[in-house]
Amino acid sequence: MIGVDWGTTSFRAFRVGKDGTIRDRRAGPRGILNVIDGRFADTLREEIGPWLAAGEDHVLLSGMIGSRQGWKEAPYLACPAGIAELAAGVVDVEFDWGQVKLVPGLATDDGNGVAEVMRGEETQVIGVLAAMGGSGVACLPGTHSKWATVEDSRITGFTTHMTGEAYAALRGHTILGRMMREGPAGGAPFDAGVSRAAEPGGLLHHIFGARSQVLMGRLPETEAGAYLSGILVGHEVRAALAGRQGVVVHIIGSPELSGLYARAIAAFGGFPERHDGEAAARGLAQIAEQAAWR
Amino acid sequence: MIGVDWGTTSFRAFRVGKDGTIRDRRAGPRGILNVIDGRFADTLREEIGPWLAAGEDHVLLSGMIGSRQGWKEAPYLACPAGIAELAAGVVDVEFDWGQVKLVPGLATDDGNGVAEVMRGEETQVIGVLAAMGGSGVACLPGTHSKWATVEDSRITGFTTHMTGEAYAALRGHTILGRMMREGPAGGAPFDAGVSRAAEPGGLLHHIFGARSQVLMGRLPETEAGAYLSGILVGHEVRAALAGRQGVVVHIIGSPELSGLYARAIAAFGGFPERHDGEAAARGLAQIAEQAAWR
Repeated sequence: MIGVDWGTTSFRAFRVGKDGTIRDRRAGPRGILNVIDGRFADTLREEIGPWLAAGEDHVLLSGMIGSRQGWKEAPYLACPAGIAELAAGVVDVEFDWGQVKLVPGLATDDGNGVAEVMRGEETQVIGVLAAMGGSGVACLPGTHSKWATVEDSRITGFTTHMTGEAYAALRGHTILGRMMREGPAGGAPFDAGVSRAAEPGGLLHHIFGARSQVLMGRLPETEAGAYLSGILVGHEVRAALAGRQGVVVHIIGSPELSGLYARAIAAFGGFPERHDGEAAARGLAQIAEQAAWR
Repeated sequence: MIGVDWGTTSFRAFRVGKDGTIRDRRAGPRGILNVIDGRFADTLREEIGPWLAAGEDHVLLSGMIGSRQGWKEAPYLACPAGIAELAAGVVDVEFDWGQVKLVPGLATDDGNGVAEVMRGEETQVIGVLAAMGGSGVACLPGTHSKWATVEDSRITGFTTHMTGEAYAALRGHTILGRMMREGPAGGAPFDAGVSRAAEPGGLLHHIFGARSQVLMGRLPETEAGAYLSGILVGHEVRAALAGRQGVVVHIIGSPELSGLYARAIAAFGGFPERHDGEAAARGLAQIAEQAAWR
């Protein structure tokens, strides 16, 4: 089968063998925002044409490609949902060179009447279900970080934290960025930011320290970005782990971001366990296996 | 005397009589960012020339005009500081048409080794000292909100919350803004955001609700901005009032912003008391009275 993790800004395709091993892969910047005039079919054919020509016919897509801004809207499924529910909820898309289906996103309520939605992360969580032993907490750091709870091999709920996007907006469009110069993303300044998040005062107060400490000569301009990042990641992790100290947190993300989150999770009393970036491919293959193809 | 509250984006001048009454005023957009090529002297003369011609000679400036980006840098004074300390710390500026002095900013430590700085707000707090009875908590909402503690008529400490600037960055430069349309700033959606800030999950999670609730049809696009504002103001007020429920909070700001903060302060167990926008003029007059002029 062919699995595609098709997000807002990136396109990652995997050719997966019957035994579940990844036989080939492609990755590029052709996320849905970079596809012009709704040319999703053409884009897909250009990207995976050789694999289709080689005989593949089952193509499963996950991510924002199934949103209103994507190829076709796949309605959200309600939690709890596992492989069976997602496989039963796939949506067909018209495509002349093979069968293409979309994995639906998930929706839930955060327990206080506020809606939560995800598209793509559900498939990645499915990909680490076995490694998680079918239950636990998964963290998918990024622009919109997701924290998902898994019980009996089904996602029972999740929360979103706009950490990555808030960082970009604060660094790019507030006075904080004017005092920052490029520097390492992690290290001691990141850890100092994480520690800062544990103190009283609140996030909106803490972030001002990324300016005032530079102003007073206590923080180099090359370290202010990592310090701000640590404050934001620290606040996310602190809130996400509140009331569940000592839990194992399964991190699914890029090596660099996973490393930073692992430090913050440990700082707030969790036990980080890192997973590789193949979670999406494994999840797509497992959902495809249970979906109904022609 | 002539008092000028000269900030980053605005210029407000007051002509104050010997009895402390405001005899005349000017306000405009000639904040320090809008003054070209360091032409501060020319700008000041253009703005207050008629008052100088009428015999005024003592001109006291407060705000970012005393920063590195302003006319001349006035070093920060350490807390605690009251009228006497600020008057003793004024800095002379060269000006051919009258005596001009700058009120120094204040610096402190937030109790956890992180620097805090203010420029301009110290003068506004001085302006409400009498109304506060010489002690209490003052809140100055805005781009960078300040919360100051006053004891024995001196500012003993303060904290900054980047609420206004974070709101502008999140609304203008994240996915949240794409789902917002103009609407009233306050009302029920603002209050709902304030209530949301009292729930678990953290600020970075709560703000995502300004998208997901719209996406699910539970929040009109015209109300999402007020909801986001309520979340941010709520988080600021919640953190600032932690451990001091039941305190009277003296709000110094514009009528609209003061009204919103009063609602949030009451929601988190404080007693809001609003002050008019003349605090800067009164503070400048009182500091000028104790400063040493030629």
